[in-house]
Amino acid sequence: MSSSKKARTHPQYELLYWPGKMPGRGEFIRLVFEAAGVSYRDVSNEEENGMKIILDMISPESTGDSDSNPPVFAPPALRIPGEGKDGKALLIYQTPSILSYLGDRLGLAGEDEAEKAWVLSHALTALDLNNEAHDTHHPIAVAEFYEDQKEESLKKAKNFREVRIPKFLGFFERVLKGNEKQGEGKYLVGSKLSFADTTVWHVLNGLQFAFPKELGSRKKEFPTLFETFYQSVQEQSRLKEYLASDRRFPFSQGIYRYYPELDRQ
Amino acid sequence: MSSSKKARTHPQYELLYWPGKMPGRGEFIRLVFEAAGVSYRDVSNEEENGMKIILDMISPESTGDSDSNPPVFAPPALRIPGEGKDGKALLIYQTPSILSYLGDRLGLAGEDEAEKAWVLSHALTALDLNNEAHDTHHPIAVAEFYEDQKEESLKKAKNFREVRIPKFLGFFERVLKGNEKQGEGKYLVGSKLSFADTTVWHVLNGLQFAFPKELGSRKKEFPTLFETFYQSVQEQSRLKEYLASDRRFPFSQGIYRYYPELDRQ
Repeated sequence: MSSSKKARTHPQYELLYWPGKMPGRGEFIRLVFEAAGVSYRDVSNEEENGMKIILDMISPESTGDSDSNPPVFAPPALRIPGEGKDGKALLIYQTPSILSYLGDRLGLAGEDEAEKAWVLSHALTALDLNNEAHDTHHPIAVAEFYEDQKEESLKKAKNFREVRIPKFLGFFERVLKGNEKQGEGKYLVGSKLSFADTTVWHVLNGLQFAFPKELGSRKKEFPTLFETFYQSVQEQSRLKEYLASDRRFPFSQGIYRYYPELDRQ
Repeated sequence: MSSSKKARTHPQYELLYWPGKMPGRGEFIRLVFEAAGVSYRDVSNEEENGMKIILDMISPESTGDSDSNPPVFAPPALRIPGEGKDGKALLIYQTPSILSYLGDRLGLAGEDEAEKAWVLSHALTALDLNNEAHDTHHPIAVAEFYEDQKEESLKKAKNFREVRIPKFLGFFERVLKGNEKQGEGKYLVGSKLSFADTTVWHVLNGLQFAFPKELGSRKKEFPTLFETFYQSVQEQSRLKEYLASDRRFPFSQGIYRYYPELDRQ
């Protein structure tokens, strides 16, 4: 991908996320690069020893790297050559922190201070929904098997589908309506694409993979969100090209998983 | 509190959080104002109709307010007169978004772009731990009673104590060690207080309230965190004065709750 994009006016960004060609939380970062048409390396998916690179980065012994960066709690992380202390590489972790940093630099953060605050707030809310979707299949312990917490998952998923999904989707529907004059239902903030849009879009995409019956049945309650917004984001020319490419990884056994028993019965 | 602080050089910030004199997520915002010595109104705790103000703000019918702000998903929110569109009031929601906005303006966000990114990342990680602490007593459904999800809570709390607490605390211990040359164990980033410090401090404070046996027993594994950092933050002169005042609300039945059965047995 590095070579196929327009001439570089940006540092050579490096995304550090789990290998295995899964979307995961890395996808929120990939989407902003793709939407902006800015080149990035997806390090662990491009290198032979991708898993070792990530495991070294999050080593429980690490107190930081040789570029004066602090340790990383969990992937995704973003390395930006030349932007750290004393001209060394900067390393940032936490999805919202990376989005906030990149948003400013890729023109996807909003047009003024007010819009910047709202874009970050809406993206954080979508990431909360993303976390809750994950917890439907891991309500007790993230490091244990789904099969060992299936009973609790059934309860958690029921509450998620019946209470949490409508609450979050209703909220984003209202955000779009409140911004309709400028955004025409296509943008959550202002009149152009932001990382709030790409983040909400990916969560909606994941929910439809994990809970097809629930979402299929609920979509019509949120017409601006699913008919106007969702379609418009994925028709954005750069994103459309990306989503059709093999750089877009399919959902499988990550945050969004399809367990028929957790979907609407 | 508004009148007791130094002459105002800031807008009259308004914190909008649940009334009832509880810390909650509002506390992360209160702490940065208090640490900076900047005046704020804690609206719902100062007004007669505090609950109505918050419920109106998060009304499931709202598409935003008359100042062109979007709807709010959940408290806390922050209103800043004069800083919104066309000189109107700006309204921001989501704790990390508010911290990021205020951090810049109150001098608690880090000294350069690298530090700013790290401060936000560490604060987000502490807020993730805060969410997981909440979920120990509400693993299935946030809007239902603890008593109705107690069995699942016992499992979740066990995993939280044995796996998650050491993972997070070990991480913050390593962040402090990696920054020891500048921060002397007292600051997570650089050589002065940031909202990462106040946020991590409050989570440590809450964990000791909710899990006194677990934390009492684990503290010695993380000496920089509990002996140097924790003590230093709460000895910072403005915070010390605040923590001894009646503006600091006690923990009770919020995010941090003391259920002996969820603590180490």
